[in-house]
Amino acid sequence: MMNPSEWFTEEAPGVASAFSLKVTKKLHEEQSPFQHLEIYETESFGNLMVIDGCTMVSTRDNFFYHEMISHPALYTHPDPKRVWIIGGGDCGTLKEVLKHPTVEKAVQIDIDERVTRLAEIYFPELCESNGDPRADLKFIDGIKWVKDAEPNSVDIILVDSTDPAGPAEGLFSEAFYRDCFNCLSENGMVVQQSESALFYMKLIGEMRGAMQAAGFPHLQTLFFPQCIYPSGWWSATIAGKQSLKQFRERDAANKPFDTNFYNVDIHKAALAQPEFFKKAFGG
Amino acid sequence: MMNPSEWFTEEAPGVASAFSLKVTKKLHEEQSPFQHLEIYETESFGNLMVIDGCTMVSTRDNFFYHEMISHPALYTHPDPKRVWIIGGGDCGTLKEVLKHPTVEKAVQIDIDERVTRLAEIYFPELCESNGDPRADLKFIDGIKWVKDAEPNSVDIILVDSTDPAGPAEGLFSEAFYRDCFNCLSENGMVVQQSESALFYMKLIGEMRGAMQAAGFPHLQTLFFPQCIYPSGWWSATIAGKQSLKQFRERDAANKPFDTNFYNVDIHKAALAQPEFFKKAFGG
Repeated sequence: MMNPSEWFTEEAPGVASAFSLKVTKKLHEEQSPFQHLEIYETESFGNLMVIDGCTMVSTRDNFFYHEMISHPALYTHPDPKRVWIIGGGDCGTLKEVLKHPTVEKAVQIDIDERVTRLAEIYFPELCESNGDPRADLKFIDGIKWVKDAEPNSVDIILVDSTDPAGPAEGLFSEAFYRDCFNCLSENGMVVQQSESALFYMKLIGEMRGAMQAAGFPHLQTLFFPQCIYPSGWWSATIAGKQSLKQFRERDAANKPFDTNFYNVDIHKAALAQPEFFKKAFGG
Repeated sequence: MMNPSEWFTEEAPGVASAFSLKVTKKLHEEQSPFQHLEIYETESFGNLMVIDGCTMVSTRDNFFYHEMISHPALYTHPDPKRVWIIGGGDCGTLKEVLKHPTVEKAVQIDIDERVTRLAEIYFPELCESNGDPRADLKFIDGIKWVKDAEPNSVDIILVDSTDPAGPAEGLFSEAFYRDCFNCLSENGMVVQQSESALFYMKLIGEMRGAMQAAGFPHLQTLFFPQCIYPSGWWSATIAGKQSLKQFRERDAANKPFDTNFYNVDIHKAALAQPEFFKKAFGG
């Protein structure tokens, strides 16, 4: 029987399951103006960041999420030059986005500067592109940023948020997606981390409905492993103004950067819809 | 903080991570001649079978594993008539195999009859094809069964085993795969559940090496979610005498049965090799 004091445990909201990592040291804890932040050193997953009791990022397995929330969309858009990341304060998504030579400007808008300051200390490998001249880190409200933006000011918006409770709640709403629609360029798309399809189909359905109501005619949910998140199986949903079938496969096959999970075959694989998902939302 | 007495928790061997389900009742516990067996009623996953402390099958999420250890191989083999299941005492794999009209005989060989007797009580939906005239349930040593078999006596061997410790240890060995090779028909293949690629790459590498040393020139590892198993991301590896590229896609598209996860797109998706896996084992 494990000794609870030696482990960090997260219960999946509403599902009565839990995931635990054995902790060797608590490295940091603070209440920021927005959230409760903890950093642990774990026995087998490297460092672990926890926000409001939920696992956010671990050294060992963050590559799944960061690669899959960015590369599929960036290799679907015909020419992604301007990318915004809403949330994403650990800077791992920013790092993946900046690997793309087409990108001229990547703005990360996280309301909580403390997340980034802690990532710089405890996840330096995720922050190694923060000094890229194309990178712009803003610590302001992403919802307001998108609401105030001019039309045609961005090509891809990546919503790398916490769960839809607390500060991130507004990021799953029709109003937010409508604001995204209005500031995106002609081929624009928004990517939303969309939780576990084994646990939260109702939430995914509501989110997809909100995206459609906001004007996006094309949706594509992607599936990928993510060990430290509830169920170990995660999703992201792309909402596009244009068809999402235009995979720049040749560019992805010749990507001028290294990945740990993503490649051409994994890109295509992530698009496959499980039978129960097709039955719920159509093919 | 969760109260440990209300939860079933499995620690992943050697990885210092754990998965837990909240338990509403312990339905059964016994020491069979081979293993320690427990059945729990859980709050959100239906019933849960535990063998030697490891989660084996839950009502809610067993469909991933049972569909993915069977249908990809059965739709890759050109004409699978004779199938053996080594292990698989919960009968869920047998049920999926018998959905295929090509199958004339499916023999399930599990050393521990008690697993099946408990599945009949607590997982009746997995046992609903046990009375099929094509089904043959044997409660004997699967390793000896394969060793004693005549050449050309089976088309597909599905190794639906526990982890490679305890009774299942011999199922991951070159000697066992060689015995499989010898009794398989010309297009024969063996499918081995092959653990988590995030946690156990060394084991996967040794298993693949043993399969090749036993004479199988073609290997294909498949990936799929499995929430209750360590890391939530599981694999199965097919070892074939002939090329494994011959997917009977039209038959799969017109499958005369229902599934919850598997379909043509999921079949192809499961074949995609993550970048780190390709680097370890080649494309």
